[in-house]
Amino acid sequence: MKIITGGVCAAKGYTASGINCGIKYRNGKRDLSLIVSETRASCAAVYTTNLVKGAPITVTKSHIADGYARAVICNSGNANTCNANGIEIAEQTCELAGKALGIPAEDIVVASTGVIGQPLSIEPIREGLPALAASLSADGSSDALEGIMTTDTVKKEAAVEFILDGKTCRLGGIAKGSGMIHPDMATMLVFITTDAAISPEMLGKALKSDVAKTFNMLSVDGDTSTNDMEVVLANGLAGNREITGEGTDFAEFMKALNTVTVSLCRQIASDGEGATKLLECTVTGAKNDAAAKTVAKSVICSSLLKAAMFGADANWGRVLCAIGYSKADVDISRIDVSFESAAGRVDVCKNGSGIEFSEEKAKEVLLKNEINILVGLNDGEACATAWGCDLTYDYVKINGDYRS
Amino acid sequence: MKIITGGVCAAKGYTASGINCGIKYRNGKRDLSLIVSETRASCAAVYTTNLVKGAPITVTKSHIADGYARAVICNSGNANTCNANGIEIAEQTCELAGKALGIPAEDIVVASTGVIGQPLSIEPIREGLPALAASLSADGSSDALEGIMTTDTVKKEAAVEFILDGKTCRLGGIAKGSGMIHPDMATMLVFITTDAAISPEMLGKALKSDVAKTFNMLSVDGDTSTNDMEVVLANGLAGNREITGEGTDFAEFMKALNTVTVSLCRQIASDGEGATKLLECTVTGAKNDAAAKTVAKSVICSSLLKAAMFGADANWGRVLCAIGYSKADVDISRIDVSFESAAGRVDVCKNGSGIEFSEEKAKEVLLKNEINILVGLNDGEACATAWGCDLTYDYVKINGDYRS
Repeated sequence: MKIITGGVCAAKGYTASGINCGIKYRNGKRDLSLIVSETRASCAAVYTTNLVKGAPITVTKSHIADGYARAVICNSGNANTCNANGIEIAEQTCELAGKALGIPAEDIVVASTGVIGQPLSIEPIREGLPALAASLSADGSSDALEGIMTTDTVKKEAAVEFILDGKTCRLGGIAKGSGMIHPDMATMLVFITTDAAISPEMLGKALKSDVAKTFNMLSVDGDTSTNDMEVVLANGLAGNREITGEGTDFAEFMKALNTVTVSLCRQIASDGEGATKLLECTVTGAKNDAAAKTVAKSVICSSLLKAAMFGADANWGRVLCAIGYSKADVDISRIDVSFESAAGRVDVCKNGSGIEFSEEKAKEVLLKNEINILVGLNDGEACATAWGCDLTYDYVKINGDYRS
Repeated sequence: MKIITGGVCAAKGYTASGINCGIKYRNGKRDLSLIVSETRASCAAVYTTNLVKGAPITVTKSHIADGYARAVICNSGNANTCNANGIEIAEQTCELAGKALGIPAEDIVVASTGVIGQPLSIEPIREGLPALAASLSADGSSDALEGIMTTDTVKKEAAVEFILDGKTCRLGGIAKGSGMIHPDMATMLVFITTDAAISPEMLGKALKSDVAKTFNMLSVDGDTSTNDMEVVLANGLAGNREITGEGTDFAEFMKALNTVTVSLCRQIASDGEGATKLLECTVTGAKNDAAAKTVAKSVICSSLLKAAMFGADANWGRVLCAIGYSKADVDISRIDVSFESAAGRVDVCKNGSGIEFSEEKAKEVLLKNEINILVGLNDGEACATAWGCDLTYDYVKINGDYRS
């Protein structure tokens, strides 16, 4: 497997574009994006579990019920959620996009991200669509990515090349997400494309299995968004024999998908609103998968630990505290904790009690911008990793007045 | 019922004291406190549900297993948690206190609060106890309160006078708590005393029922402490006929207890680490109690909403979002939301969708330091209230380097 560039256009037969159509009036940034497959593609998606769901989620679910799609249209600046006419606007968006592309509206995935509860006008979308369609290009991943960003400060994309059935396949994706990140079943907006041939059923299976280990193990602020969505399109243009069941090809496809999604997870966590550090919590020796996941996620969600990491303070008691209230099945008296970064590793807790360590060394480790919190439960074989970020002044600043 | 002063010494037969014994080396603040009842008192307590439990909790549980106690000793500056010799230190503390007071060690409740995982030396406690015992006084509530404070910036106490069986009874308490506040079954440290006569069994019943509606509905940062404890002592010196079952006397006692605990909850939320505003979320019209509580607590726990309240931003979509991910049984399309404060009330959401409102008026309402978030579920008769605070730069500052 090889890491490559190209994001959502890395695979054969995909073009993308992003423009400013006037939804984000004030700053002229791109706010409308399109991703199109040359041919009909297998399509699978996972969505937020928030009871308050963006209207685009309802429309997308119905459009991909048959397992296939051709294009994705997404606006930023307005979540089209909690609006009385939301469904109507999302349907109209698909119709307009279908007309511009010459494909059925039912083959289009629609997504929105931004402020909740402000009416979304169809006018800027109607006016922008011809230009958006005209600018579709195989180099368009970056423009499309800009068009879905809100408080994101960096672009998140990843892609890999791999071999299936002797054919070179590619899989790549783009993601947005910085605040309101605590996915449950899915995440913010993640669009992934591949030219591998895989049936909708197996694509759905791959996505569900992968999301449980990647985006569902990610948290910036504990707030599960109303508009989370991860969509994968697979158009089969790589020419491999279609994957229709488990086996080595499916395993290789899963590996490619996981490489891209873990990379996107880390990029989202690093760019968490106001974040200065990526936190990774690696739990080993758990009694079972559920315990491993629960512990890892509880640790990276603790506001107190997140603030301590911002201050490069090796306050490991907060790691133990977060494990203790996680409700996971663990034996506290067996827990070991270490902090690790590019500056080395420092062990701080053994068998549930503190051990002597150099505060100077710990400071050095924690001053780096990627910190791994290693938790050994010494109680079994299961492991899990979760990703998060520190809690900083800037998180408060960004969210103290998001709407203005 | 009458609001009175006197805190934990308001009721007959209680004295208290607080001194600096040297556990908090650096600032000379009081760090060791004592509360003593003239006679043996009915005693009930609730504790943290965190699997990582402070050693004092284990010792206290065993000491009050018979339903009675005479005194409470508490240190701040060190949580005596995750230390290999924690139980031993907590037992020694009770023995030393028992000796100084001339009462059995088994009649003493012990508590600790502060940093987790740093060994607690018995020496400062041994050396401080004679002075601590000698300074016991009926005016000592305030000193005892200072001795249990950590990052608290204000003193939290409350007391009431009420009539049971024709006798004047009093009930009062003190509390500490500012960060790591998200109680589950109990809260930070809350010590309550009363001179009402009530059996240990009925006292336990009153406490459990009350805590579910008060401290368990309070959150500053979502982190459930390892040392939470609420203890009530009832020495019967008011001379009322002992409460041994339900009835009007028990109802009146519950009302007194609830008046004091709600006041302490509001004081803790107002003084949440870095907080500038008290947030109260009042949920009405829920299908059942569980839904009402879950919704209220989810709203006041949302980092995004807390930051918006800091910025006086009427971003009600975050209220809907937090209700949506709470997993409570609600009908989103029936939800109404309003913000209310001393400056008036502004309705922002009706039937799950936004309505027009004056941003100017909303700003005025949200600039006050006590905000009520009113959520009408229009789906039943149950209601609940939860308390929290805004998320501010200072929360990050305080927790970025708590240990130094």
